[in-house]
Amino acid sequence: MEKPNDLRTFKLTLAYIGTNYRGWQKQAEDFPLPTVQEVLEIAVKKIVGEQKFFMHGSGRTDAGVHGRAQVAHLRITSKLPVERLLLALNRHLPDDVRIINLEEMPAKFHAQLDVNAKTYRYFVLHSLDQKQQVNWPFLRNYTWYVSYPLDLDKMRHALGQLVGIHDFKSFQNRGTPLPSTVREILAVELSSHRFGQSAFPWLPPPELNCELLEFRLRGTGFLKQMVRTIVGTVVEIGRGKLAPEAMGDILAQKNREASGITAPANGLFLDQVEY
Amino acid sequence: MEKPNDLRTFKLTLAYIGTNYRGWQKQAEDFPLPTVQEVLEIAVKKIVGEQKFFMHGSGRTDAGVHGRAQVAHLRITSKLPVERLLLALNRHLPDDVRIINLEEMPAKFHAQLDVNAKTYRYFVLHSLDQKQQVNWPFLRNYTWYVSYPLDLDKMRHALGQLVGIHDFKSFQNRGTPLPSTVREILAVELSSHRFGQSAFPWLPPPELNCELLEFRLRGTGFLKQMVRTIVGTVVEIGRGKLAPEAMGDILAQKNREASGITAPANGLFLDQVEY
Repeated sequence: MEKPNDLRTFKLTLAYIGTNYRGWQKQAEDFPLPTVQEVLEIAVKKIVGEQKFFMHGSGRTDAGVHGRAQVAHLRITSKLPVERLLLALNRHLPDDVRIINLEEMPAKFHAQLDVNAKTYRYFVLHSLDQKQQVNWPFLRNYTWYVSYPLDLDKMRHALGQLVGIHDFKSFQNRGTPLPSTVREILAVELSSHRFGQSAFPWLPPPELNCELLEFRLRGTGFLKQMVRTIVGTVVEIGRGKLAPEAMGDILAQKNREASGITAPANGLFLDQVEY
Repeated sequence: MEKPNDLRTFKLTLAYIGTNYRGWQKQAEDFPLPTVQEVLEIAVKKIVGEQKFFMHGSGRTDAGVHGRAQVAHLRITSKLPVERLLLALNRHLPDDVRIINLEEMPAKFHAQLDVNAKTYRYFVLHSLDQKQQVNWPFLRNYTWYVSYPLDLDKMRHALGQLVGIHDFKSFQNRGTPLPSTVREILAVELSSHRFGQSAFPWLPPPELNCELLEFRLRGTGFLKQMVRTIVGTVVEIGRGKLAPEAMGDILAQKNREASGITAPANGLFLDQVEY
């Protein structure tokens, strides 16, 4: 019989395409797709059999949201060396979910409670020619396609006002009630990328006349759909529907009605989790 | 009644993800997916109704092969302005196929017969650490994953021997018999890309310890699966299964048995067609 101290704790770093999953963990929505956590648990069961085990992610991601380096902890009893365990688990996962790193950790490591900061990135494919509205197939699951003119300076100004410790209640969509909606955003960035003829073929060619906008937000924690609501609001500011100065007022109102639309899930990547 | 001179000729530039198609045009293989040409013809029918029309591609692409800028001509009777026709056709296409440019051409333009040169690009995701074999989910449909060591110098030497006018019979897979298997390769290139932590999230992160190899071949014409057979052979040379000097001998033998494996379809992009 295995003693309890045979229990080992692993840190899993995960990459996944969110398109075919209903998020990291089952949420209110009900549609006929598995969650990322479910397919991981199936893979673990193939390795450990009937043994009871524990897995916990750094936080949820919504249906359609991608993980570039999501983190989870796993507590199992196993004698397999780390490298073999990594290969064995990946062998039992669908090819749009991969464990890219596996590390043995002290027993007290907790993927959610120990987080110091998270970075999210959000991509918008922005048409620069109103008469030529063509989405780029290779990025269609990784970007929000926006075809109206945007003022990037106004967007950067608005985004900058979010840095610091604020009550982000106006940017929280309905979910599990939380004791506090105060969070700290450490850094924000909005950059524009354009590509030449020799760029990778999955990037939009110059004939398409569009730019790839990249939002990057690093913070100590995020509320439900907070990044998507921030991006949706900043895009509405860029479009002229809201003034860039409105951002302070939106925060002050502490009311979801005050902010803008929720940007679609497919443009969002959980990029990094820091411990 | 419309007169025959109402017939207009258009040049369509097309981007498509080949993953869910059984190629540009129905071939010998029989599997339950549409072809790219089929979905385009369905879209054209929605616009022109019962009218008979003609469409012809610059050449076939295999099942799983991607188009970054495939070209086809379309002869239809229509009074729609070019811009509206482009929008209308795209509206009736699945989102993994897009017409990225539409141009009216002289009646004699022929997408296949008028080709001056074509460029193909092929991508290999190459693991640099034998103990860490993890494919990157975001590129799994766009790259061939190779986990063994490769000697890039040998590969470049072998590839260079293909430039010029040669009988490429040894690199042709079975297909429609052709009057000649002599073709001209104008340029070849093999480059290696590595990515840092701030690269786009669909590119492999540094922790994955891999490189993205890119083959680029520009030629006046290519035989059936010629690029894939060249890439497969060059990879076998890089692996040490064949000597780099063997390339001259392989060409001289004019026999498919002399060359190496056919690289998988998913790493291949038809990148450009020149007229």
